[in-house]
Amino acid sequence: MSRLRCLVEYDGTGYEGWQVQLGRPTIQEEIEHVLKQITGEATRIHGSGRTDSGVHAVGQVAHFDIERHVDVPLVQRSINAILPAAIAIRQLEHAPPGFHARYSAHRRTYEYTILNSPVRAPLRRRYALHVGHPLDVVAMTEAARSLVGTHDFGSFGAAPGEASPDGTVRATVRELFDARVTFSGTEVKIKVTANAFLTHMMRRIAALLIDIGSGKAEHDAVKQALLKKDDRPRSRLVPAHGLCLMAVDYGEAGRKIPL
Amino acid sequence: MSRLRCLVEYDGTGYEGWQVQLGRPTIQEEIEHVLKQITGEATRIHGSGRTDSGVHAVGQVAHFDIERHVDVPLVQRSINAILPAAIAIRQLEHAPPGFHARYSAHRRTYEYTILNSPVRAPLRRRYALHVGHPLDVVAMTEAARSLVGTHDFGSFGAAPGEASPDGTVRATVRELFDARVTFSGTEVKIKVTANAFLTHMMRRIAALLIDIGSGKAEHDAVKQALLKKDDRPRSRLVPAHGLCLMAVDYGEAGRKIPL
Repeated sequence: MSRLRCLVEYDGTGYEGWQVQLGRPTIQEEIEHVLKQITGEATRIHGSGRTDSGVHAVGQVAHFDIERHVDVPLVQRSINAILPAAIAIRQLEHAPPGFHARYSAHRRTYEYTILNSPVRAPLRRRYALHVGHPLDVVAMTEAARSLVGTHDFGSFGAAPGEASPDGTVRATVRELFDARVTFSGTEVKIKVTANAFLTHMMRRIAALLIDIGSGKAEHDAVKQALLKKDDRPRSRLVPAHGLCLMAVDYGEAGRKIPL
Repeated sequence: MSRLRCLVEYDGTGYEGWQVQLGRPTIQEEIEHVLKQITGEATRIHGSGRTDSGVHAVGQVAHFDIERHVDVPLVQRSINAILPAAIAIRQLEHAPPGFHARYSAHRRTYEYTILNSPVRAPLRRRYALHVGHPLDVVAMTEAARSLVGTHDFGSFGAAPGEASPDGTVRATVRELFDARVTFSGTEVKIKVTANAFLTHMMRRIAALLIDIGSGKAEHDAVKQALLKKDDRPRSRLVPAHGLCLMAVDYGEAGRKIPL
């Protein structure tokens, strides 16, 4: 048996996210369907994590196991020839020993893209949220800095089993390594790297930063949200189409995929 | 009566090009439909030129006339609120005296985008042609230079009425001001500015440059095509989805739209 690791890019527009859900189109199901055609066997593919319905990826990482020895480039070309145009295996290679796309992952990086322009832009509408009023990017940048560190992100998202049985460690604690806001022309990007993300966490962070940049939330609203013991009601969500999973880092001598 | 000039962006994916065709979805028809809703009158909008089925634009320029005095920003917002997401009026303003979107235009700039990477990229599939083998961008750049100048572009496209009545001036002569090939990462762009373009001219130029970059055509194939007296068979066409109308220049003290 051999384990293959792949880098997956997808346009999430028409899909109900990564993970298989009976009767709904998902990225995982599309790839597994192709793997079955190629290998002749039901083959499970494991992603580094789920992505929500409508979220895109240029750097999703996944693995699957195959019984026989295969020509890896040939398998990659075959998969890409069968997959719908919205999904592609950008890289395929033998996984290092003990590799698991989800459990071996050290860090995930997501990016949320905003088109900050008075008028919407048809060519960007699938991959950026349009915000028509000017955003205060400096205020957003400063607020983003407060996110860095190990915090209880309960105000920004849910985790399965929200408290540990003895109540000492909350399951909503995550380590956030980097959060930055950049702009270029009419495009504002919010880029966040963390060990893992809670459900909807990135979209709630983006929503709060946009509120701060719009003057609808105080400059210290991020700090306040992180201090909040009562994590409900959680902040609002921005739409999925601005979000993209950029990279997953496996800590192999600093190796990040994609490089 | 007052004449308004607009800058139009559109995603050509679902459309049969700019120009109204009975029973087929076109950009012009969508905008005219909205103008009728707003003004209550059938209103013709004139573009700087047609774009083919599936071709995009970020810088199409058009004009239309309205009977009464209007609040221009309000009209722009109303149009954009009604138009489908694939089309937007990026700018709207009073046209200078005597302005005509087509007849006043001095130069048009088109860009053809190629994703030059072994594997296709789902997030770019609507706006770039995927070429899987490496392109010789230097050879393409040199070949593009031969296009600059006033030439008979008959090998690259058709014009209505291909010869003038007395046979002295062929209707396929155009002046090409600039043609350049640039690359950044996996993206190769072919950008051409001319006084006007023949039907399919830009897509045939892109096809020949790609053939040169692929080693399928001689380095001097552009020169040969320009010298050819017999203009049939014309070179092949690349698909429409990689093409975008970038800007139209009206020569108002060097003014280009968009600025």
